[in-house]
Amino acid sequence: MTSVSTAAAFVAVDWGTSSFRGWLMSAGGEAIAESRGSEGMLHCVPDGFASVLHHHLARLGVSDGMPVLICGMAGARQGWREAPYVKTPTRLDTLHEGAIRIDAPGDVRILPGIAQARADRPDVMRGEETQLLGVTEPDFTGLVCIPGTHSKWISIEQGHVVEFSTYMTGELFAVISQHSILAHGVETGAPPPVDSAPFREGLAAALAAPSGLSASLFRLRAAQLLDFEERSGGAARLSGLLVGTEIADVRHQYGAQALRLIGAGQLGRLYEAALKTQGFGVSMVDAEEASRLGLAKAAMNIWGAQF
Amino acid sequence: MTSVSTAAAFVAVDWGTSSFRGWLMSAGGEAIAESRGSEGMLHCVPDGFASVLHHHLARLGVSDGMPVLICGMAGARQGWREAPYVKTPTRLDTLHEGAIRIDAPGDVRILPGIAQARADRPDVMRGEETQLLGVTEPDFTGLVCIPGTHSKWISIEQGHVVEFSTYMTGELFAVISQHSILAHGVETGAPPPVDSAPFREGLAAALAAPSGLSASLFRLRAAQLLDFEERSGGAARLSGLLVGTEIADVRHQYGAQALRLIGAGQLGRLYEAALKTQGFGVSMVDAEEASRLGLAKAAMNIWGAQF
Repeated sequence: MTSVSTAAAFVAVDWGTSSFRGWLMSAGGEAIAESRGSEGMLHCVPDGFASVLHHHLARLGVSDGMPVLICGMAGARQGWREAPYVKTPTRLDTLHEGAIRIDAPGDVRILPGIAQARADRPDVMRGEETQLLGVTEPDFTGLVCIPGTHSKWISIEQGHVVEFSTYMTGELFAVISQHSILAHGVETGAPPPVDSAPFREGLAAALAAPSGLSASLFRLRAAQLLDFEERSGGAARLSGLLVGTEIADVRHQYGAQALRLIGAGQLGRLYEAALKTQGFGVSMVDAEEASRLGLAKAAMNIWGAQF
Repeated sequence: MTSVSTAAAFVAVDWGTSSFRGWLMSAGGEAIAESRGSEGMLHCVPDGFASVLHHHLARLGVSDGMPVLICGMAGARQGWREAPYVKTPTRLDTLHEGAIRIDAPGDVRILPGIAQARADRPDVMRGEETQLLGVTEPDFTGLVCIPGTHSKWISIEQGHVVEFSTYMTGELFAVISQHSILAHGVETGAPPPVDSAPFREGLAAALAAPSGLSASLFRLRAAQLLDFEERSGGAARLSGLLVGTEIADVRHQYGAQALRLIGAGQLGRLYEAALKTQGFGVSMVDAEEASRLGLAKAAMNIWGAQF
């Protein structure tokens, strides 16, 4: 016989642009089973969401009555059904109040994203708000960094998201390395190891001259043409330049301080190492764990009484 | 009967990556006839250079004995024949000494580019050095800006190129507007008019926060998603952000000062206006005129005695 704490209580889903991750969860917030796939939002548009969810629920062995809580791009305007952004400043532990309910069998809800609806600093997130909820206490004050294609830096005060900025660091790496003149000088692949010399040099160059990114990019190619550098170091140097420019701007805005880093794999370790060199104190939380924790907290707020 | 000063003396060619521009020139440096086409270096590789030149010489009505002086990418390693870079610091009025002679009927030469072979600031130019020669006096001291796909900023002292930097401004505009998430928010086309409000706002934002380009790029898209801005202003704003980041970095390095701007069309006028708002004194020279003047000066240095 299964104990109460490990009995299945709900399904948590992180439904991104290009991936689906579902977990069967206990009322205590522990993952009992997992089902993941590549059926992200782009795969499901316009009307594949219900059947993809049904497929994964079946794989998890879940009956129709089980509540499902979703975060991420499934709630975007171009997703399954829009879960309108809540606006900054907003408490993370009231996120669930903005969840929308899908017109489907069972109780299926999607958490909202957060918008910074300020003309001077417009910004949006969808999915990261749930990770933030996952890794912060109700009275948390501090800075959180979520590196990635669109890196997010979030300033939180007493459990409220008060301000955030998105840096297109990962996407700039992709478009510059694939479509610019640097395509000749950059071999794309996994992020560089943290002890990569060209990464560290690129990082240092960007931190020393953060307004000079566009000139540093050309120098990367010129250094190869003039035989100062090997093509093999190009990707690590480009990564260092872009991450360094991001960190320089954040340091300029907030100063070096203790922060929580919601990271995954090699990229998370790279940011951790880079931030530490600049005097930031870093405590890292795994990105997937953060999503699951946030979904569990929000689920408790929605259905806790009935678990 | 033709007077001496307007008799054809040589052919000047600006042979770039994607275009060919040839002029029949008098000994006095005046263009008598012109022939242009789209047969740039990329079109001619690997062995079409001789026949393309022959075609344009025929269009100019030139006999085989007429000297030809070429600048630009035809002299690159991947061009017709490499005219190895001369190294900074270098006098502009000795550029012709680095010209290489093509193994072809007649006297056909290609001017060299200039390399900054410094590990800390590696950089290269090919074509712009001839424009610099064209627009500067032998004892010129000052800053020259050549905006474009790869904007060049050149510091000249007493007729020597002492230092230069290349900004990938135009290329970043192209890859970001075509291949990033901003492709949804930017309609590409001609550069914006100088009085464009989104251009000026982007310029001001970049000058106020020059390390924040990667965040400003995402804000451009977020502002549209949150209905603060129209998609129609996206290209002008992106242009303002990129040009502003370039100017901020130059201002940081050299300070606002009088400069010569080698520009063409709408883009030249845009830089002129942007630079003036930041306190630079700008005297503009047409880019094509600059190339022709530089080729004429170098030709006089090579063949002047026989004209």
